[in-house]
Amino acid sequence: MIKAGIIGGSGYTGEILVGLLLRHPKVQLAWVTSQSHSGEKISSVYPHLKGVTDMAYKSPNPAKLAKEVDVVFAALPNGMAMKIAGDIISAKAKLIDLSADFRFKDALVFKQWYKMDHANPKLLGKAAYGLPEIVKVKGVDIIANPGCYATASILGAYPLIDAGIIDTASIVIDAKSGVSGAGRSLTDDTHFPNCNEGLSAYKVASHRHTPEIEQALGKGIKLTFTPHLVPMNRGILATIYAKAKRSVDDAKLLKVFEAFYKSKAFIQVLDKELPATKNVLGTNNCQIAVRYDKRTEHVIVLSAIDNLMKGASGQAVQNMNILFGLPETAGLEMVAVYP
Amino acid sequence: MIKAGIIGGSGYTGEILVGLLLRHPKVQLAWVTSQSHSGEKISSVYPHLKGVTDMAYKSPNPAKLAKEVDVVFAALPNGMAMKIAGDIISAKAKLIDLSADFRFKDALVFKQWYKMDHANPKLLGKAAYGLPEIVKVKGVDIIANPGCYATASILGAYPLIDAGIIDTASIVIDAKSGVSGAGRSLTDDTHFPNCNEGLSAYKVASHRHTPEIEQALGKGIKLTFTPHLVPMNRGILATIYAKAKRSVDDAKLLKVFEAFYKSKAFIQVLDKELPATKNVLGTNNCQIAVRYDKRTEHVIVLSAIDNLMKGASGQAVQNMNILFGLPETAGLEMVAVYP
Amino acid sequence: MIKAGIIGGSGYTGEILVGLLLRHPKVQLAWVTSQSHSGEKISSVYPHLKGVTDMAYKSPNPAKLAKEVDVVFAALPNGMAMKIAGDIISAKAKLIDLSADFRFKDALVFKQWYKMDHANPKLLGKAAYGLPEIVKVKGVDIIANPGCYATASILGAYPLIDAGIIDTASIVIDAKSGVSGAGRSLTDDTHFPNCNEGLSAYKVASHRHTPEIEQALGKGIKLTFTPHLVPMNRGILATIYAKAKRSVDDAKLLKVFEAFYKSKAFIQVLDKELPATKNVLGTNNCQIAVRYDKRTEHVIVLSAIDNLMKGASGQAVQNMNILFGLPETAGLEMVAVYP
Amino acid sequence: MIKAGIIGGSGYTGEILVGLLLRHPKVQLAWVTSQSHSGEKISSVYPHLKGVTDMAYKSPNPAKLAKEVDVVFAALPNGMAMKIAGDIISAKAKLIDLSADFRFKDALVFKQWYKMDHANPKLLGKAAYGLPEIVKVKGVDIIANPGCYATASILGAYPLIDAGIIDTASIVIDAKSGVSGAGRSLTDDTHFPNCNEGLSAYKVASHRHTPEIEQALGKGIKLTFTPHLVPMNRGILATIYAKAKRSVDDAKLLKVFEAFYKSKAFIQVLDKELPATKNVLGTNNCQIAVRYDKRTEHVIVLSAIDNLMKGASGQAVQNMNILFGLPETAGLEMVAVYP
Repeated sequence: MIKAGIIGGSGYTGEILVGLLLRHPKVQLAWVTSQSHSGEKISSVYPHLKGVTDMAYKSPNPAKLAKEVDVVFAALPNGMAMKIAGDIISAKAKLIDLSADFRFKDALVFKQWYKMDHANPKLLGKAAYGLPEIVKVKGVDIIANPGCYATASILGAYPLIDAGIIDTASIVIDAKSGVSGAGRSLTDDTHFPNCNEGLSAYKVASHRHTPEIEQALGKGIKLTFTPHLVPMNRGILATIYAKAKRSVDDAKLLKVFEAFYKSKAFIQVLDKELPATKNVLGTNNCQIAVRYDKRTEHVIVLSAIDNLMKGASGQAVQNMNILFGLPETAGLEMVAVYP
Repeated sequence: MIKAGIIGGSGYTGEILVGLLLRHPKVQLAWVTSQSHSGEKISSVYPHLKGVTDMAYKSPNPAKLAKEVDVVFAALPNGMAMKIAGDIISAKAKLIDLSADFRFKDALVFKQWYKMDHANPKLLGKAAYGLPEIVKVKGVDIIANPGCYATASILGAYPLIDAGIIDTASIVIDAKSGVSGAGRSLTDDTHFPNCNEGLSAYKVASHRHTPEIEQALGKGIKLTFTPHLVPMNRGILATIYAKAKRSVDDAKLLKVFEAFYKSKAFIQVLDKELPATKNVLGTNNCQIAVRYDKRTEHVIVLSAIDNLMKGASGQAVQNMNILFGLPETAGLEMVAVYP
Repeated sequence: MIKAGIIGGSGYTGEILVGLLLRHPKVQLAWVTSQSHSGEKISSVYPHLKGVTDMAYKSPNPAKLAKEVDVVFAALPNGMAMKIAGDIISAKAKLIDLSADFRFKDALVFKQWYKMDHANPKLLGKAAYGLPEIVKVKGVDIIANPGCYATASILGAYPLIDAGIIDTASIVIDAKSGVSGAGRSLTDDTHFPNCNEGLSAYKVASHRHTPEIEQALGKGIKLTFTPHLVPMNRGILATIYAKAKRSVDDAKLLKVFEAFYKSKAFIQVLDKELPATKNVLGTNNCQIAVRYDKRTEHVIVLSAIDNLMKGASGQAVQNMNILFGLPETAGLEMVAVYP
Repeated sequence: MIKAGIIGGSGYTGEILVGLLLRHPKVQLAWVTSQSHSGEKISSVYPHLKGVTDMAYKSPNPAKLAKEVDVVFAALPNGMAMKIAGDIISAKAKLIDLSADFRFKDALVFKQWYKMDHANPKLLGKAAYGLPEIVKVKGVDIIANPGCYATASILGAYPLIDAGIIDTASIVIDAKSGVSGAGRSLTDDTHFPNCNEGLSAYKVASHRHTPEIEQALGKGIKLTFTPHLVPMNRGILATIYAKAKRSVDDAKLLKVFEAFYKSKAFIQVLDKELPATKNVLGTNNCQIAVRYDKRTEHVIVLSAIDNLMKGASGQAVQNMNILFGLPETAGLEMVAVYP
């Protein structure tokens, strides 16, 4: 059994990790920390976990706690994991960090978009960007678990880049997310009456997942990314547009995606259907479809994930599975909750 | 491995059974039928099952198909399972019927509320009402899987009856359900713009789950039951009111419920918290809390389930587990999808 | 033209008053105050008011501001209007208070439920409870605008009391509200992902609208009241249960309600249909239906309102219309927003 | 008073027209037809209209009925208004058609996208495309009321074309609509449990509003248009992307839009805020904002409307006001229903 701990277990990604790890056939969840709820039962803060666990949150003490486990999941606000990563690695535990702290190879890009200095830039070289369908993650000490929008966007766009089909200066990503993507902190924008029955864009031309997508796609690509808030709990749909630079059609594009994602357990390339966030709700899956608009010579890719699963906690478990040589789908074989 | 088949696998309860049985550690799903989708892949009708199964719906032929399995789940409209139950039992398979056909001991009550003659009244004696926290189901040939409202209501009210605390002539059950309870057939009332952002009662003083609850509570009880349609996909909350006939308080009531449901894996009796349908979403759990209004001497019980799980397909699997001597929670250990 | 001011114009009831009064044919809105947004344009805080008004919030100074107007609407947290009511009356302005401060005839009841001493109990005698279908409001200095749950509940229950049909010791009110009823302040329970797709009761046997309903129904009635939070923005449905004490049927009950609400512009007594909150969304209407469950001898009344209109700001304008001798429906003739 | 009739009054756009025209200060609603509900009270089909009108639907007989009115609104499925338009014009009534029948100058384009021959192509020359902020509609016999997506898209994109700022070969419109846009007919995709809590694109590269937008923008433009279905009742947000062909910035773009829409009553060009569909819910307004992504040299326009108001019935009334010389905002001065 792999021993795991969770630092920052009182946000949504944290509580979902609790559920996933407690039900994982090869994992023993040793501890879960929370600064604000230290000492409280997890199931008092999250009553849906009654009957699942009687564990209580511990006070965070990463240096000490890390010694008790093989892997530490950090589900903290940006800027915190980079301060404790050294302690965790010194304790010979792997770190799977759900924040942005280790996502960028270049500390300057991090600083530019996150408005803070990186506390431990030399560790950036020890981290892999944990999108395992695209990047090899085996063997590293730190996994930088990707952003939710970035996951949906990269999985949708990468095969086009890889196949050299599109004009890389023309990429537009219009992404839509359920409200849980904004986290558990209370804000005016996520107050039910303010966002229910409404739809709007936010952080136009300035969302921090933009450079993350650009780095993963490579080739110096700059792209236009616009996030939108949709009145539902979970799900991201990324609609990706790019000008084709050579002659394609729906069938050829389908083959490109099917070949690229062959034998990838969590990626479902659709043919006739279009992705719907409902179809992946509660799962680690990503559904993708691609279409060609021959009138305008644009390729359109649709990519749907559950933002808290493949977009966060599910992918973190997938990364752990790979790091520790387990089957990639261990503990992640749930069926979507439909309807 | 237990071999199972599903007759009527294209409704919501059917597709959820498909998912549950395919992931069940002790079950092999042999076939799934659908009259309207015969020959089609299940995952074409329900794209969230892509990657889960490549099975296609078979044409219904219960007499023949039943011979291939140990248990048949029937997820059909009312009035159909009673016509094929004989064939299934003759084939030595158990029948777990999700319709109302075998829920009533008295064929006349069935006729009165369902406006049809029972096709096979002598089989009623071979059926158990499959609410296993209340009724012993082991050993029967037919399980009459309870109605969704009935499940939430009986689980909430029964301990009060059992303890002799309330005036049984005063019971009022105000129940609220998500829209999936109305099934997959298209109706004006379940057209999204017609029901979203709205709330209303329906079938006031005439809902068919009323006699089902009354039969389970026994003692000739007649009660007032009012269902309401709530703009959410899943979940039932039953709020149960009754006049206390002797002096109680919150603590005493809590003890009654805790004692009654001791060691029942799926029932969570809450103390300080109140049940919320979100806390059981996607699970076979029922959360219950009880309060005493000393100003009016009324007992108030709150009971929350997922209408498609404990209220239908999950409970059907629970019944199968018991019938076949498996652990009651086998294949039903999912954590609620929250948020 | 009647000159009006609004104290506390940055909550939901305040912004709706702004819209109603700006569009009212006989009113001139002189000023709107907000402590937290003083100096800001109203349409910056509420961008849906762009194009409707360029007014800015003023700093609250009731004694001075009241002199400029004929009527002051107070949309403040409980406990604040009672401190400024004297100043407003001294300035010869009428006060229409949307809080609970003037709803109780007995200052002790207020203290018992609101956990604070009343600051100005002698003014209670100058206030009328502003449910004009039930209470005469003309001629008073202060209108205590009713609570939202109380409005729906009283309008539904009162005709039964008036007609002497029911056992007044048996009244149970199961009420369900959209989330805007909880106001604009951020709370865990109104964070979108926490309440969307969920349903629960709250403040069981302890909600403060209980004594308000009891006072309006009179006769020393004590009743059981349970509020529920429903994942929609607006609307209250109250389902009211009581034991009949004499023989009735649906037709007789319908006549009772039709007679009672004859010529009441905002009350629609339905015959065949059942009330739905959608049917009154955005209006000052209340839809009511009544049914008899002869099996249990219970009367069931359904009463639906928009909690922010007939349950708050709309009713406040209705009260103003009556106080100033305007047609009761002036400025309140909007058609429901459907779907 | 202008006398008006509605042909096809039982869909959503029809019932909203009923409400708007009954409350319009200068209109008398003479009749409303419905084939399927002929003889029934409108308020039986739409109970939110109880207390608003006692009118019953008439059987459609356009040739005869048109003689009784000054203007006929046709709210029919595509392909029907073109068959009766001649009768209406012969009766000297104006026709405001909410379908696509008269939107295209070229009958071949209509045939290509709508898969039917135009029944009366010579009348196309008598029709104006009724987007009055862009097209002069005064004086014509027929108004072709624009499509909902087209309205939001054209209002957002036109000023960019007019100012010559963008590369017209690069336009991508990602549009999102609430479910009422799909109409009142029952479909699998609009069944509540199937679409609630889900998000997907549809008719990728093939939606019929595409050529309508292209025709309005002119210059032989071909653009990529993708509609999405969002789980809310009302609202369209169009997010419009195009490559800038000369140097711009946010301030310059804002001036372009402010100048273009100066004195247009229903268009609100926002500066710091971003459009939200909630801000225009229930109104005839369109909120627009524009941003420049200097990293990618793309212009991004956000345009929000209520699909049933500015996107359909509200705009139809606006067109009527202009045709008959009334103030453009008559009967359309409602404040958005917020929250």
